[in-house]
Amino acid sequence: MATKPGIPKGTRDFSPIEMAKRNYIFSTIKEVFHRFGFEQIETPSMENLSTLMGKYGEEGDKLLFKIQNSGDYFSGITDEELLSRNAPKLASKFCEKGLRYDLTVPFARYVVMHRDELTFPFRRYQIQPVWRADRPQKGRYREFYQCDADVVGSDSLLNEVELVQMIDAVYTQFGIRVSIKLNNRKILSGIAEIIGEADKIVDITVAIDKLDKIGIDNVNAELLAKGISLEGIAHLQPIIQLAGTNDEKLAVLKEVLAGSEVGLKGIEETDFILQTLKGLEIQSEVELDLTLARGLNYYTGAILEVKALDVQIGSISGGGRYDNLTGVFGMQGVSGVGISFGADRIYDVLNQLELYPAHTTQTTELLFVNFGEKEVAFVLPVLQELRNAGVRAELYPDTAKMKKQMTYANNKGIAYVAIVGEDELAQGMILLKNMETGEQQSLTPEALLKQLRNK
Amino acid sequence: MATKPGIPKGTRDFSPIEMAKRNYIFSTIKEVFHRFGFEQIETPSMENLSTLMGKYGEEGDKLLFKIQNSGDYFSGITDEELLSRNAPKLASKFCEKGLRYDLTVPFARYVVMHRDELTFPFRRYQIQPVWRADRPQKGRYREFYQCDADVVGSDSLLNEVELVQMIDAVYTQFGIRVSIKLNNRKILSGIAEIIGEADKIVDITVAIDKLDKIGIDNVNAELLAKGISLEGIAHLQPIIQLAGTNDEKLAVLKEVLAGSEVGLKGIEETDFILQTLKGLEIQSEVELDLTLARGLNYYTGAILEVKALDVQIGSISGGGRYDNLTGVFGMQGVSGVGISFGADRIYDVLNQLELYPAHTTQTTELLFVNFGEKEVAFVLPVLQELRNAGVRAELYPDTAKMKKQMTYANNKGIAYVAIVGEDELAQGMILLKNMETGEQQSLTPEALLKQLRNK
Repeated sequence: MATKPGIPKGTRDFSPIEMAKRNYIFSTIKEVFHRFGFEQIETPSMENLSTLMGKYGEEGDKLLFKIQNSGDYFSGITDEELLSRNAPKLASKFCEKGLRYDLTVPFARYVVMHRDELTFPFRRYQIQPVWRADRPQKGRYREFYQCDADVVGSDSLLNEVELVQMIDAVYTQFGIRVSIKLNNRKILSGIAEIIGEADKIVDITVAIDKLDKIGIDNVNAELLAKGISLEGIAHLQPIIQLAGTNDEKLAVLKEVLAGSEVGLKGIEETDFILQTLKGLEIQSEVELDLTLARGLNYYTGAILEVKALDVQIGSISGGGRYDNLTGVFGMQGVSGVGISFGADRIYDVLNQLELYPAHTTQTTELLFVNFGEKEVAFVLPVLQELRNAGVRAELYPDTAKMKKQMTYANNKGIAYVAIVGEDELAQGMILLKNMETGEQQSLTPEALLKQLRNK
Repeated sequence: MATKPGIPKGTRDFSPIEMAKRNYIFSTIKEVFHRFGFEQIETPSMENLSTLMGKYGEEGDKLLFKIQNSGDYFSGITDEELLSRNAPKLASKFCEKGLRYDLTVPFARYVVMHRDELTFPFRRYQIQPVWRADRPQKGRYREFYQCDADVVGSDSLLNEVELVQMIDAVYTQFGIRVSIKLNNRKILSGIAEIIGEADKIVDITVAIDKLDKIGIDNVNAELLAKGISLEGIAHLQPIIQLAGTNDEKLAVLKEVLAGSEVGLKGIEETDFILQTLKGLEIQSEVELDLTLARGLNYYTGAILEVKALDVQIGSISGGGRYDNLTGVFGMQGVSGVGISFGADRIYDVLNQLELYPAHTTQTTELLFVNFGEKEVAFVLPVLQELRNAGVRAELYPDTAKMKKQMTYANNKGIAYVAIVGEDELAQGMILLKNMETGEQQSLTPEALLKQLRNK
């Protein structure tokens, strides 16, 4: 007997119920993307390693899943090289292709490859799995879906405004209350500039983030320990203790960053986004949050992050503006701004808050019990008519015991069971049983059709 | 400057239009699957090589894309082995995982792994890409989607009947006229049995298939050349020249195969399927076709194939009954029957016959031209309301030249353009232009909303 088969660690099977919930998530997001004029593309799961390598840092290169060349994968490798056993160096000789690590680099490659067919600004979305040879842990998988929307080829801040609207529309649709955090890379650069410590941005945001927990004195002590001058720390005080409304925060920042051109630019951008949003019906709170420092190595303008208010979980969406998306592939001057929805976390949030609409996991609506050949002959045309009318219906295929058939209906969460036994057959009637209430009705085929079609 | 990036041979990018068409195909098929009570699952792209190897024959093993182990992939391989450069043998040392080659083996693995959670008969469908290191050629890709529906754990022939109904429903929905070819492995076995040549099934079907082209004499000559006895060929004459209705064909077969138990069983099964279908409203012709000999190494009962009537192309769907689906993973006695829809070919057929509904590729319905800050301030709330009402609408994000914005609308196939310039702004009106007819209307925001929502 073969051993029970398994799947590679960090990967998952999705059951019908999980798929129904995931489909609900993706179709809700897609619906919003469409309303905002975004169009879907797909790129191959495999990219040339030359496309992927060097785009995610040294650590990222190691986390790429590489695909062994077909045929004689030893060809072109000398005996000496083989015996050197230099795994990282020889990887690109054994393998020309790798699985995509994210959707951004393949998208940049797509834009460059298809530049002549595309109309800019190009609003694209993409929902596909990505693969990372990360150490698997709770909530972290080696295969997971990303769900990205980006606009490329437009510098307009209206794109940032629309991304916030889109986030708001998605989470309003889900019924998840969120806080949308907004920051700007240029403000952070401005802060670093005025204290003369360009490379200390992360240290500063990390320290500020601890204010609530450790208090102002400890924050200052930490900044000092990180090598920031006393003068710099003095300059930072209004920023560390920044509070109040977004407008109040911006007013303070404007004063503190008066000497930094880039800082003022970041304030102006943020102000535009926040003021424009004021006139629109945003359900979610939008908060200027200077501690937001995600993706500092690629975001160049706005930085966005979304926190669920009613569940303890990391950010459930994030994004921002990145200039020069396609520069690495030789196409300069194309700015992008985008947002990524974390499907796995949204899944968990919806589960915890029990926010899935009832119809999400509804599969078959009606099961006909199978009592044998004659009854089946009566049932089949009725079944066909129901399906033609869009009703999800099944006939149990085998003449099994009633109990087994009812268990099947129960396990599958089927709402109604239709019974046609000898008596019903004689009368040309169908006994319809509501599986939730236990209620039974005797109906003609026409009445059954009418009743179920109206649902 | 970097060289223009490419993608691995045999893989494809899908543009927004291609995606819209593909989504139409998949959602149509899914809708039908749901009506028949099938539930979706997904399995990981990667499976352990131990799950995949040996399931597709020696040739299949070579066509598996293998994923190099992470970290030190040399570990566990001796210097001697390395220098042997035995690529096929060492593949499973360098690689523990591979990309799935089809959806059937992962499904069998899924059923065995999750047997305790599943309720049988289990009706599952699965739409995911598969990968094969085949030589790419026209219409053959290294990454392509499969779209499979199977019922496992039921021997009932009603499943075969439903699969035919499902095929019919899908193609009726698409508007593609098809012929559904039906055969039965047991009939073929019976034929081989009565002429005493069990291993000649394929030779016989291939020869019979040529009847129309080369005539009866040449068919017989070919059979002789393939080593079939003169007596056997004499026996085969009524089968080679089988014609008429399905019932007529079955009557002839019943006589010829009277001495073969398995053959008669195949006839009985086929007869049941065809008789049962007669009572239902099938749009497509269903034809008993003995030359249909696909998947002879795994199908054990019914064999199905679908041909498009109005386009010259290979089969666009295929399937059949396979006993002992899960035996290879240690779970015996589970029979399966399924059907696979060929998305790429369906795509081509719909293109050639121009059968895509107009709304398929409709993206954004309305584009607001961007005339500057003041106009945008007026437009944004209107846009928000339109989107809330489900209208797909955009605002051109930059204050670009009118011509550029209209080109954008044209290229994206946007149906309406809304213009709010200085005059319109002063009057609080919106000029709506129908991009197809050129017609223009001046509307209040409320009237615009009403008009577009009603579409």
